[in-house]
Amino acid sequence: MNYKMIIHMLGQVCLFEALFMILPLFVSLIYRETDGYAYLITMAFCLLFGFLSSRIKVKNKKIYGREGLVIVAFSWIILSLFGCLPFFLSGDIPYFTNALFETVSGFTTTGSSILTDVEALSKTNLFWRSFTHWIGGMGVLVFILALLPMKTGGTGMHIMRAESPGPSVSKLVPKVKTTAMILYAIYLSITVIQIIVMLCAGTPLFDAITLSFGSAGTGGFSIKNDGLAGYSNLQQSIVTVAMILFGVNFSLYHLLIRKKFSQAFKMTEVWTYLAIIAVSTLLITLNVSHLFPSLYEAFHHTAFQVASIITTTGYSTTDFNTWPPLAQTILVIIMFIGACAGSTGGGIKVSRIILLLKGVRKEILMICHPRSVKKIKMDGHTVSHEVIRSINAFIIVYAVIFIISLLIISLDSKDLVTNFTAVAATLNNIGPGLNIVGPAGNFNSFSDLSKYVLMFDMLAGRLELMPMLILFVPSTWKK
Amino acid sequence: MNYKMIIHMLGQVCLFEALFMILPLFVSLIYRETDGYAYLITMAFCLLFGFLSSRIKVKNKKIYGREGLVIVAFSWIILSLFGCLPFFLSGDIPYFTNALFETVSGFTTTGSSILTDVEALSKTNLFWRSFTHWIGGMGVLVFILALLPMKTGGTGMHIMRAESPGPSVSKLVPKVKTTAMILYAIYLSITVIQIIVMLCAGTPLFDAITLSFGSAGTGGFSIKNDGLAGYSNLQQSIVTVAMILFGVNFSLYHLLIRKKFSQAFKMTEVWTYLAIIAVSTLLITLNVSHLFPSLYEAFHHTAFQVASIITTTGYSTTDFNTWPPLAQTILVIIMFIGACAGSTGGGIKVSRIILLLKGVRKEILMICHPRSVKKIKMDGHTVSHEVIRSINAFIIVYAVIFIISLLIISLDSKDLVTNFTAVAATLNNIGPGLNIVGPAGNFNSFSDLSKYVLMFDMLAGRLELMPMLILFVPSTWKK
Repeated sequence: MNYKMIIHMLGQVCLFEALFMILPLFVSLIYRETDGYAYLITMAFCLLFGFLSSRIKVKNKKIYGREGLVIVAFSWIILSLFGCLPFFLSGDIPYFTNALFETVSGFTTTGSSILTDVEALSKTNLFWRSFTHWIGGMGVLVFILALLPMKTGGTGMHIMRAESPGPSVSKLVPKVKTTAMILYAIYLSITVIQIIVMLCAGTPLFDAITLSFGSAGTGGFSIKNDGLAGYSNLQQSIVTVAMILFGVNFSLYHLLIRKKFSQAFKMTEVWTYLAIIAVSTLLITLNVSHLFPSLYEAFHHTAFQVASIITTTGYSTTDFNTWPPLAQTILVIIMFIGACAGSTGGGIKVSRIILLLKGVRKEILMICHPRSVKKIKMDGHTVSHEVIRSINAFIIVYAVIFIISLLIISLDSKDLVTNFTAVAATLNNIGPGLNIVGPAGNFNSFSDLSKYVLMFDMLAGRLELMPMLILFVPSTWKK
Repeated sequence: MNYKMIIHMLGQVCLFEALFMILPLFVSLIYRETDGYAYLITMAFCLLFGFLSSRIKVKNKKIYGREGLVIVAFSWIILSLFGCLPFFLSGDIPYFTNALFETVSGFTTTGSSILTDVEALSKTNLFWRSFTHWIGGMGVLVFILALLPMKTGGTGMHIMRAESPGPSVSKLVPKVKTTAMILYAIYLSITVIQIIVMLCAGTPLFDAITLSFGSAGTGGFSIKNDGLAGYSNLQQSIVTVAMILFGVNFSLYHLLIRKKFSQAFKMTEVWTYLAIIAVSTLLITLNVSHLFPSLYEAFHHTAFQVASIITTTGYSTTDFNTWPPLAQTILVIIMFIGACAGSTGGGIKVSRIILLLKGVRKEILMICHPRSVKKIKMDGHTVSHEVIRSINAFIIVYAVIFIISLLIISLDSKDLVTNFTAVAATLNNIGPGLNIVGPAGNFNSFSDLSKYVLMFDMLAGRLELMPMLILFVPSTWKK
């Protein structure tokens, strides 16, 4: 285990976090809020840690798969530990566990909140809270890879593989650094477009920026107590479209930019993703139509909620906790499916589901035609045996983490639906669940133990399990 | 597809069903109940169908994997269709869908009931209802294999593989026929021992026989409205032990008979199964202790309920619907785990869970030591790649059937916990779930559509998915 390289990378993460905090500092100056001091103090800590770690000389910069996973796991933990300090120091979230929960929820783009009154936060803190979504959406290490010169071969690839969502990392171009730059360029561009469109629809600038951060990272923190219920239908619809766009595999946008239209429009995952959205919206609209004044209203709110849940954003325009069982069941199911691989969304990912189903199809066909040799293909390419095996392992690890989390938080004696959807909402990085943790509720009433379990789930979900899991495997720490 | 051979086998099943009905006919004579006529009429139908199908000349007796699956699926469907006639014709369950539901639930050893007043049934019908559990536990086709001369190679093996529970069929001895005979001999012996022990504990003969049928097949139909609550602690404890014994892999008993003790006591699956029972009982006892007058009482009822659920029997001595969330969550989790492969129990099976976890362990170790080549082993033997792949396919098919069933029964607008546990209880062949389908409730209030979906789930669960699934695959029916 290359400990020096790990500490070196963590130092870099802290330096970048200090850099990120310049933005909320600006906001505090604009709104003349004193919370800026909390950010200055935090930045000082970040810089100190970053400076100290940069003093350690790293002779051997070579890392392997497991170091890549460990770096990513610790980076996100340290990012959250420093990131929560402003909430804590400013006194807006005076209880440390809650401040940490809110920050982990932010960076992992979950959007589960412990706050009972969001509007009581200062503008500065509200901005930082939403900005953590934007940073976490594409990944802080991908950001570092895009900007820092990385001379050692393999380092970037191992880190990118560990931080990027999806069964196999999609290198858009041969160089990791260029891939990271392209991803962030696309990400930034669509975010800016959303902010502009929101402004055109009459949204105040602060709302347009924070809501766009939340959609871009598929996060879900809103700046109002009633979520997005208070915005106009037009503004809500813009967010619906934006969420769906951020849940698409970013390879699609890269193909579009390079004018490879025929390839772009053949992506099985994207079509499946859109089909799931369409079918779910149709079924739920019919199921909830009696709750709204018109079929259009029912469709409008259903489309928003479906887009919000499948992309694992977690915004809400209405309390779906009051919807009938079929609608709720569909929402819970798409919680698990999640968005496309290579997007900013969470969940199991559409491509994993497709490959799992293709595996079953192959198995059944082999019963009918025992001698035929079948390969699993996706978009015309044969999917390697290793990818299939790792997806199967992913599903089992996912189930194990889910069950253990469920058992521990059951100690709080909340009802089964609350517990089940609390774990589903955090492990899939969505935000709200049902009952106590429904859109109108929050996670505040959980015990500290449960909150730490749910924080683990959020991190495990965002980093696709392995980086967090490997910390608990003894052989990770052996020579 | 060898249709003639399929019809031939279905005819055999009907003849054997007529044979089985001799027992309830005796019961009707003893208790001088007129319901015996319903059995006579049904037997006439069975014999007619059996006779007609035996007139078809089968030249080519060779069958392949898919024919084996289709034969098993249709056998169980036809068994249930004829088996429900006595309930329907006698007027004890006047609604056909309900009579069929109760019978499917019986043969698949589920034990989910649509009856609101069990005690209103005649003794004859109560006997047949419990006897279906005993027939279904070890499997009707295994019974036929044990008794009928089978000359064609492969036929028996394909059928046994399709009907027996577990990831790979465990042939105790090289010959399929002898294996089937040994299994039924062990099954019958332990059942008789249980009946005798129950009689010694002061249980009335009728109760001892029917309750033993229910434990042996891990079924769960009781003959009282309050389940097993009315029996003495001693009688309940005998059932606890019996249920655990019937959930053990029958290979263990075969090894014991052949005095291969060291091999018998090394079975990983059995130890894991007992460990899960011990840990669950401990945790739940602590969690529910405040609900009982003494810690012993809490332990007694917890042990019964844990044994009942993990073996997928479904008997109850107390209404665990009123237990706290942790206890309920543990019960729901062990619903899915189920008993050992090669037992009469349902669920995913302990050995499948073990192999899945071993697969994950291998995957994680490969991250830490990329060049090491690991094989998955169980009890000292390497597990073949095909078995691992088929287990992975099993889990995915299981999840797909679960989700589709959940969606369809959600149309009935019952609460999420009822829907979730109703599917879990039927697909895992347990019996009761929580809330409306809890130990004190029943499945009567579901719509006909939901009842048929749940019947499909019971059959799919008992036959381990593939036989029922393959009926819907177009290429099964192609040349």
